[in-house]
Amino acid sequence: MRIREIHLTPVAFRDPPLLNAMGVHEPWALRTVVEVVTDEGVSGLGETYGDLSHLERLRAAATELTGASVHAHHDLYARVAASVGANVVTDQHGLTGAGSNQKTVDAVFSPFEVACLDIRGKAAGLRVADLLGGPVRDSVPYSAYLFYKWAGHPGAEEDRFGAALDPEGIVAQARLFIEEYGFGSIKLKGGVLPPDQEAEAVFALRDAFPGLPLRIDPNAAWTPATSMRIGKALDGVLEYLEDPAPDIEGMAEVAAEVPMPLATNMCVVTHDHLPPAIARRAIGVLLTDHHYWGGLLRSTQVAALCATFGLELSMHSNSHLGISLAAMTHLASATPNITHACDTHTPWQDGQDVIAPGALRFVDGAVPVPDGPGLGIELDRDALAVMHEQYLSCGIRRRDDTAYMRRFDPEFTPKRAHW
Amino acid sequence: MRIREIHLTPVAFRDPPLLNAMGVHEPWALRTVVEVVTDEGVSGLGETYGDLSHLERLRAAATELTGASVHAHHDLYARVAASVGANVVTDQHGLTGAGSNQKTVDAVFSPFEVACLDIRGKAAGLRVADLLGGPVRDSVPYSAYLFYKWAGHPGAEEDRFGAALDPEGIVAQARLFIEEYGFGSIKLKGGVLPPDQEAEAVFALRDAFPGLPLRIDPNAAWTPATSMRIGKALDGVLEYLEDPAPDIEGMAEVAAEVPMPLATNMCVVTHDHLPPAIARRAIGVLLTDHHYWGGLLRSTQVAALCATFGLELSMHSNSHLGISLAAMTHLASATPNITHACDTHTPWQDGQDVIAPGALRFVDGAVPVPDGPGLGIELDRDALAVMHEQYLSCGIRRRDDTAYMRRFDPEFTPKRAHW
Repeated sequence: MRIREIHLTPVAFRDPPLLNAMGVHEPWALRTVVEVVTDEGVSGLGETYGDLSHLERLRAAATELTGASVHAHHDLYARVAASVGANVVTDQHGLTGAGSNQKTVDAVFSPFEVACLDIRGKAAGLRVADLLGGPVRDSVPYSAYLFYKWAGHPGAEEDRFGAALDPEGIVAQARLFIEEYGFGSIKLKGGVLPPDQEAEAVFALRDAFPGLPLRIDPNAAWTPATSMRIGKALDGVLEYLEDPAPDIEGMAEVAAEVPMPLATNMCVVTHDHLPPAIARRAIGVLLTDHHYWGGLLRSTQVAALCATFGLELSMHSNSHLGISLAAMTHLASATPNITHACDTHTPWQDGQDVIAPGALRFVDGAVPVPDGPGLGIELDRDALAVMHEQYLSCGIRRRDDTAYMRRFDPEFTPKRAHW
Repeated sequence: MRIREIHLTPVAFRDPPLLNAMGVHEPWALRTVVEVVTDEGVSGLGETYGDLSHLERLRAAATELTGASVHAHHDLYARVAASVGANVVTDQHGLTGAGSNQKTVDAVFSPFEVACLDIRGKAAGLRVADLLGGPVRDSVPYSAYLFYKWAGHPGAEEDRFGAALDPEGIVAQARLFIEEYGFGSIKLKGGVLPPDQEAEAVFALRDAFPGLPLRIDPNAAWTPATSMRIGKALDGVLEYLEDPAPDIEGMAEVAAEVPMPLATNMCVVTHDHLPPAIARRAIGVLLTDHHYWGGLLRSTQVAALCATFGLELSMHSNSHLGISLAAMTHLASATPNITHACDTHTPWQDGQDVIAPGALRFVDGAVPVPDGPGLGIELDRDALAVMHEQYLSCGIRRRDDTAYMRRFDPEFTPKRAHW
């Protein structure tokens, strides 16, 4: 079964003003919906970043992929690698580590691979999870992913989540998410306020939700020294401490001193980073992300490597829609050693989606693996058209949290090892 | 599609008196043919060791596997692990490293996994190679696997291969194999004669077949000091030096001093060995073997790990039949970084097989990936019945090269770090 055509549709959906070390989320989040159609008329879905440079790479890859077998994983990968050539697309939002050619190829390949797995599952009457080794859990737990945020975008109305700029606001946000989704663990995006204030928010979460696993992710906004100090202060409170300081070397320094495992989706983002990170014992938990680890099959291979080296696994998330949530759920259900609840931005999506409702739902903070073949989801073409119109009219062509923040705070600088 | 029944058939086939560090091959080699049949009537084949203790584990596992989905890789593995429990089947022939519970589970799981992949391929109209990522090579190169040997088993007629007990005999054997199969690289099983004599055989091969990649495998019969001395003497002559000395520590000592990469199928035989071997830079080439690395999918995961850590890959072989050769060929064809010719005992099988002729053939030393769905082979039930009768009548229930050698040389001791 061969690829006859590929449709790439950039979309935009409303995003609240979520704060992070690089700035603040713009009013619109961008994604690209990938639809692969075979010569037998079976189609499959993938979802990836919407930045224009990435979209251009996707277009070049799509040309190379036409005519390829949906089963020929290695051939598909080689075609994508050829289309990318020596190019490096840097991580423009600064939150998922350094760019490299390897990471660029993996990121371009990913949505096509997911779509081909969707097709292969549909053709065989199997779920994508079955193609990845079969589910080891019927339902995938996700964490409540909290953000410091403004009440609304400047000049716009307050959003329904309200402001969260102190421990009380963060606890209220957690309460809302747990009430609506049933999450059983909590992640706080940090790197926004001085570290001690963020630690106070963690303590407030501990007091408000005793027993729930907690994490904080300052996106490398802290120095190693601060990371050690805060890490020690949060002894017994955190499940893991995510990317407190930059780089493998800095993380290794911290890891040697703090009592909890360090997690990352910044200092280990391609295969090249694994040997030095392992040699230096820089991390205890890898946050995988199929969007830049080369799709689902390659993510299972990274997971097997982590099992061999005693690294635990969780999953990273950027702003995404339902196609990605489905792919993440199939992957996590079929990866035995993803034992930590995965991250998701789903609550911030606030009901907006490009897939038909019903296939994905949260039950007690977890998403049951969809029953249908492939990813088990269907494109909502009306919603897709609306979101594509939003893309065309929103004016944003690449994510830039820093530039948006500077509109309101011209002196703002990204917080890398800042505190 | 679920497993309805599993047939396990131990078989024996004639084996020449091949010499190695543990002794000499007995007149009969044992294997177990595994046939898995689903509730939809599709059947698949696997092949594994024939030692009685292994056969008993296979039987226990087969009971656990009945009713499982052929797609549920993780569930199948968990069932096998449960059936094995805490048991450790030691490597009774002493040539594939230390036994462990992990290795036992992986070895018991392997033939069932291969059979399930055969079934899944047949059901989907795909080759097993397609299920593993698709072939990156249409044809898999194998090496001429030379052995020192007697002219025939004591008391029996001379076999058609004749004696090989000196460089001339080894060169003649290589010439025969290359003439019959077209091999483009050569491996010499060593650990039989004093190391300098074996090095002489390698030089003779170099002179007789200039340009052909050469390897020697003394099965850890040498000390690190001898390994360094011989390794340096063979500078520029060897593609790699396989298991000259025992253990990761010994191999690391040698690796630091010799000019060529060290390869192993002895000091790294489960996942647990990879971290220390990598940390100590003990090896440059891993010889995978799906028979004890947990089947084909898990072998591709090990291959991905090796790619990440810059280890090269080749493939190990014990005496085997066509089901294993088919599985090895599909695996190697779909594993991009198996860049060295794989080992095979096929020539020593001398036409004996349990599969119908025609599906597997050597063209210029390489086996084209079979076209048919699944493994692309069919069981020859008459041949299977004959080989099973041979098993019943041959009297051998576990491989023991040392005991057999001692019948003729009561003072023989296995050669571990002997020279």
